[in-house]
Amino acid sequence: MSSTAAGDPRAEPLTSAEIAERAGVSVSTVSKVINGRSDVAPDTRARVEEFIRRHGHLRQKRRAGGPAPLLELVFRQTRDAYAIEVINGVQRVAREHRLAVVLSELQGRHTPDQGWVEQVLARRPTGVISVFAVLTDAQSGQLRSRGIPFVLVDPGGEPAHAAPSVGATNWGGGLSATRHLLGIGHRRVAVITGPDRSMASRARLDGYRTALDTAGIAADPALIRTGDFTTEGGLAHARALLRLPEPPTAVFACNDAQALGVYLAAAEAGLRIPDELSVVGFDDLPPAQWTVPPLTTVRQPLTEMAATAATMVLALAGGRVPAQPRVELATELVVRASTAPPGG
Amino acid sequence: MSSTAAGDPRAEPLTSAEIAERAGVSVSTVSKVINGRSDVAPDTRARVEEFIRRHGHLRQKRRAGGPAPLLELVFRQTRDAYAIEVINGVQRVAREHRLAVVLSELQGRHTPDQGWVEQVLARRPTGVISVFAVLTDAQSGQLRSRGIPFVLVDPGGEPAHAAPSVGATNWGGGLSATRHLLGIGHRRVAVITGPDRSMASRARLDGYRTALDTAGIAADPALIRTGDFTTEGGLAHARALLRLPEPPTAVFACNDAQALGVYLAAAEAGLRIPDELSVVGFDDLPPAQWTVPPLTTVRQPLTEMAATAATMVLALAGGRVPAQPRVELATELVVRASTAPPGG
Repeated sequence: MSSTAAGDPRAEPLTSAEIAERAGVSVSTVSKVINGRSDVAPDTRARVEEFIRRHGHLRQKRRAGGPAPLLELVFRQTRDAYAIEVINGVQRVAREHRLAVVLSELQGRHTPDQGWVEQVLARRPTGVISVFAVLTDAQSGQLRSRGIPFVLVDPGGEPAHAAPSVGATNWGGGLSATRHLLGIGHRRVAVITGPDRSMASRARLDGYRTALDTAGIAADPALIRTGDFTTEGGLAHARALLRLPEPPTAVFACNDAQALGVYLAAAEAGLRIPDELSVVGFDDLPPAQWTVPPLTTVRQPLTEMAATAATMVLALAGGRVPAQPRVELATELVVRASTAPPGG
Repeated sequence: MSSTAAGDPRAEPLTSAEIAERAGVSVSTVSKVINGRSDVAPDTRARVEEFIRRHGHLRQKRRAGGPAPLLELVFRQTRDAYAIEVINGVQRVAREHRLAVVLSELQGRHTPDQGWVEQVLARRPTGVISVFAVLTDAQSGQLRSRGIPFVLVDPGGEPAHAAPSVGATNWGGGLSATRHLLGIGHRRVAVITGPDRSMASRARLDGYRTALDTAGIAADPALIRTGDFTTEGGLAHARALLRLPEPPTAVFACNDAQALGVYLAAAEAGLRIPDELSVVGFDDLPPAQWTVPPLTTVRQPLTEMAATAATMVLALAGGRVPAQPRVELATELVVRASTAPPGG
């Protein structure tokens, strides 16, 4: 079955020649579109892909058994334990289905280059799972036109993307982290966010704001710092926060890496955690339990999120449309030893 | 060219039928051996593989372009930042050669199961890079008989393995870590090793012993603890060390994860690092620079080791025999803030 999951079920798949005739282009142009070549005018490509989307494409020479037993896993960046958690979740599902996992990294770029897309099209994987990386509309169209489903994990920047995705309840996590600090008596709670373009980070910040607001505390702009999810960044922002005339008594770092930076800044300033400064992170990557003191943080179930995405992409590959194309798994506050009432 | 790199260059590749005739077995048995099936008697398999090794196997239906543009990367376990460093090194070389990286994890097993081998044989990768995992002789033979080269990274357990490998100068690293501690005045230096079966760990321990010996200090068996490379294990061993009647003033942890456990034990005991206890790790994974205080550790160039292994496997795939089949890259002591003279 080579028609796409999104195709009209009543339409018959078309051969390249049929598509060429109906779209009024040459067979070689159809072939270029199908093979992900870039030397096709955008409107021509769109027209051909629309036909393929509506009807499906009947490959002249099908390989036995359909797509290759591969799952593609593409990261914007494989940097820390975050990537390991995601890899392990995808591997678990892949093993159950005897699929191999092909790993790619975009070296920090948000969007794959055309070379990556062409290689993926050539490998004909069963599906693509993308972490933080966002495909362009043209790239999405190329995968769709070949019946290769894709699912986003922890979609970072694009609120209105069309692809199915698996995220976490970031807003709820920001809310519960901040409420925990307010609940033990803190009134000056700072936040170090992720980059502005990260919707996950914005949701965490909004949860922080709502926690303050519902506690009747006005947000102090001096206590809100736009970070970059790195430890270096967390360190720099925490230094600045601790030098304020009225420094915070608690910091909510929007990921664990930044929380480590807050630990360093506290040590530099001679402040003991949690007695003189409380710190909450976000992610609960395995190292969080081994910091001194162990980190209170919001657990994001990354392995489960990745496994859910892999299961979803396999369902799509099997022609089943997921009931929930946009899933958010629950975050959970894990209270360890880095938070205590102010003035310990 | 489907003859193996190790094959006799004068021998002509044989078809399955020719191998079957010469080995006195059925064509289907030859086919089973070639396809990695397990239902072949060991001596029959050995005889068939010996023919394939000597002559090479002429596939009846060759795929265009020879092996698939894949590199297989298999880990015993993908657990922490160690795996990320290795993945990034392999990816770098794979990108340069437009190869995809297929990632597998053995979930802690030392040896792949037959299912993994069969899947690899079916994928026909350009080469296999194995981290900590050791292939059985039969599995090695299966890869060899199909002309799939493999290289070990950081070979853990097997001192006399036949496959090419890339490691680090573990003995030298253990020596320099211990000499650093002795050089700043420590006399009671403890060591928390890795598992006994790990040759890398044994080499680090031997470096420790030689550093003590050349400084005229007798090794105290109470200060030598056999660890398991986990933070939990490091914590338990450090607790025991700090409860000794004559506790150490410095601990050399044979990996960074265990060093984090020592940090926790020191915090529990109310000891300040480095003033009251010095700690040295091994690996220098990225988190080591963000501990409080930043960790003095022996840097193991994991990304370079992995890139070297990938380059070596590509050379073998191209029929070139590496000049150095067993490479050790240099380790380097990185002095940060976790070490100071005793009684600081």
